[in-house]
Amino acid sequence: MLGVYDVYGGSPDAAVRHAVQVPVNDPLLLVSAMAQATEHLGFGLTCALSYEPPYPFARRMSTLDHLTKGRVGWNIVTGYLDSAAKGMGMSAQPPHDQRYEVAEEYMQVVYKLWEGSWEEGAVVRDRERRVFAEPAKVHKVKHDGAYYHIDAMHLSEPSPQRTPVLYQAGASGRGREFAASHAECVFISGPSPQTIAPHVADIRKRAVRNGRAASDIVVFTLATVIVGRDEAAAKAKHEEYRRYVDPEASLALMSGWTGIDFSKYKLDDPVRYVRTEAGQSSIEAFTASDPNRVWTVGEVAQHVGIGGRGPVFVGSPQQVADALEAWVDATDVDGFNLAYALMPESFGDFVELVVPELQRRHRYKREYRPGTLREKLFEPGRPRLPENHPGAGYRRL
Amino acid sequence: MLGVYDVYGGSPDAAVRHAVQVPVNDPLLLVSAMAQATEHLGFGLTCALSYEPPYPFARRMSTLDHLTKGRVGWNIVTGYLDSAAKGMGMSAQPPHDQRYEVAEEYMQVVYKLWEGSWEEGAVVRDRERRVFAEPAKVHKVKHDGAYYHIDAMHLSEPSPQRTPVLYQAGASGRGREFAASHAECVFISGPSPQTIAPHVADIRKRAVRNGRAASDIVVFTLATVIVGRDEAAAKAKHEEYRRYVDPEASLALMSGWTGIDFSKYKLDDPVRYVRTEAGQSSIEAFTASDPNRVWTVGEVAQHVGIGGRGPVFVGSPQQVADALEAWVDATDVDGFNLAYALMPESFGDFVELVVPELQRRHRYKREYRPGTLREKLFEPGRPRLPENHPGAGYRRL
Repeated sequence: MLGVYDVYGGSPDAAVRHAVQVPVNDPLLLVSAMAQATEHLGFGLTCALSYEPPYPFARRMSTLDHLTKGRVGWNIVTGYLDSAAKGMGMSAQPPHDQRYEVAEEYMQVVYKLWEGSWEEGAVVRDRERRVFAEPAKVHKVKHDGAYYHIDAMHLSEPSPQRTPVLYQAGASGRGREFAASHAECVFISGPSPQTIAPHVADIRKRAVRNGRAASDIVVFTLATVIVGRDEAAAKAKHEEYRRYVDPEASLALMSGWTGIDFSKYKLDDPVRYVRTEAGQSSIEAFTASDPNRVWTVGEVAQHVGIGGRGPVFVGSPQQVADALEAWVDATDVDGFNLAYALMPESFGDFVELVVPELQRRHRYKREYRPGTLREKLFEPGRPRLPENHPGAGYRRL
Repeated sequence: MLGVYDVYGGSPDAAVRHAVQVPVNDPLLLVSAMAQATEHLGFGLTCALSYEPPYPFARRMSTLDHLTKGRVGWNIVTGYLDSAAKGMGMSAQPPHDQRYEVAEEYMQVVYKLWEGSWEEGAVVRDRERRVFAEPAKVHKVKHDGAYYHIDAMHLSEPSPQRTPVLYQAGASGRGREFAASHAECVFISGPSPQTIAPHVADIRKRAVRNGRAASDIVVFTLATVIVGRDEAAAKAKHEEYRRYVDPEASLALMSGWTGIDFSKYKLDDPVRYVRTEAGQSSIEAFTASDPNRVWTVGEVAQHVGIGGRGPVFVGSPQQVADALEAWVDATDVDGFNLAYALMPESFGDFVELVVPELQRRHRYKREYRPGTLREKLFEPGRPRLPENHPGAGYRRL
């Protein structure tokens, strides 16, 4: 994320005071060190395309795909914080739908660079003939659109995946349509299976309408897991974590997500149904999960402080596995985007206690597939975008 | 470098065929892996500011300075390849002097972000009071200039050096003035002490005129060293390397540097004195080194293929050390920017054979100073820009 949460109280003070996603260094720069220390782990990188010209950005992702031997994913974000726009000389974000128009064109440009600039077989490394690459198979990308203009070849040799695995998280109609067209993995969030299931079905239906298969998109839903050896141990952890939640920190986050300044409300004020453009339905999610329950601002803050916009599963390994299975079966999601209450404890607990239980139930892999991130997620032997993906249309035959 | 050498023959074909600085991945992304494997090495990164908006770029450098514990330098390049400009939607580079105007303003913006956004002591990490940073000590940077507009706080906590060690290599009058104002280290190049010495004196004089000390700038001149156990072994290596030089590859490089299409000349055509704006005096350097010698295009290509724009020292460790000492004494340079004929052999040979000889002569350190790159180069205990540097003027007192 580029930018800072500055809606709460009209300033970034609460975010700065409680270190709410600030300071935030550039995540791309960590990857080469992590790649050296791991063999199979994939790296999903959130980059807002509004702040990255496509020509150097395409090179960045190709470089990382080389350095990780094909383990890079890109979470495509159009950017939603006015504070980030102000860092780039704009007075505010462009309107929501225009951001998606820009994003559509941006994707065309990076597909051309990744898929169309260097043909398969362009690089020959022929020592006898003293030829590294055949110039006739390396092409300038020409693009002259409404937002981007380019007349240049891609600077990186094709990487194992060429186009990184594409992630997306748009929740609006326009965002879902974008995901159905471009995304290979989709992040969603919601507090109950009832709010998630129709969202998943809608994404798969849109994918099919776009000439793709329903299963071409892997859907992950947000969840926090607090697990102990038994239920009592898990509940004790949860109670302890809750004591550390700071309402001001949570509401700084909520205010940034929704565009609503929560400093103007009392903690016991009820949350009414509100839908904002910036909000991507964060509050809607809570108010819709159980129409009979009235959440207070303080309760939402308490929940967000541990679970973000998703559910919090608290229990023994068996109880957590039951809950995860029930969610998968009720919603048709493919997996979970695990949030953490504590870092790295939440992930350590999950690996140590929940993964073995899921493996016993044949719900979790016992080893990684070989190959690139795309092959681990989809099909062995197919490191590149599939033929029915729009990016494949930019290849030269 | 962002862009490709496409002046030779009016296309990038020669560069692509011989892999002349293309493909070229993003060097920033390698640093975190190299930082894990080394303790003292500094990382000087060449980034063209024309293609990096200052707000995310400042975060990138701060991130790397954190990840390396203060071992990052930035070689400030304004960008000189039209091919790179075309990747960014421009039809050509802006004119030379305008690029330096943009660069001056860019420096103001990044100084404000690195030096002025987070005061010393802003980060308190006070667990009792549950305060990470004092909001009153974290400031938005406001800049409303001719080329850049920004209204945002820096996103990274201050790093060990805050501003990375600043390198620069401008050879024109405007470039030298920029270096004299901003650079802490300067890269120069030329084929003889006679061409180098006045350049060094000029940079130091300009530094003093800018309120700095002559010794505040460390000057490195380009050189290639081909060393063997004895003179005969070194000469044999040199002869072997020369056989691998491809004139087309060298001339693709020369054409890119100078803006002159050398595909239009024969290899035995003489090189006459030419000065081009883009050229940064590359050819001038050769023609001026010995006014009585007439270089042919082929001879220049042969030299450039091994030594670039600098001298090639061939000999025993003693002969090479003699030559390096003579250059330092005759030119007042502080050190050398070593080019390579072969990678990594050229560096391995230098470390194994020349460094011990220079250490015996007390011309080379026997251990690294502790601390950041700036402390290793200048003064222990002073990781930040000195008070007389223009960047220091953006600090809040």
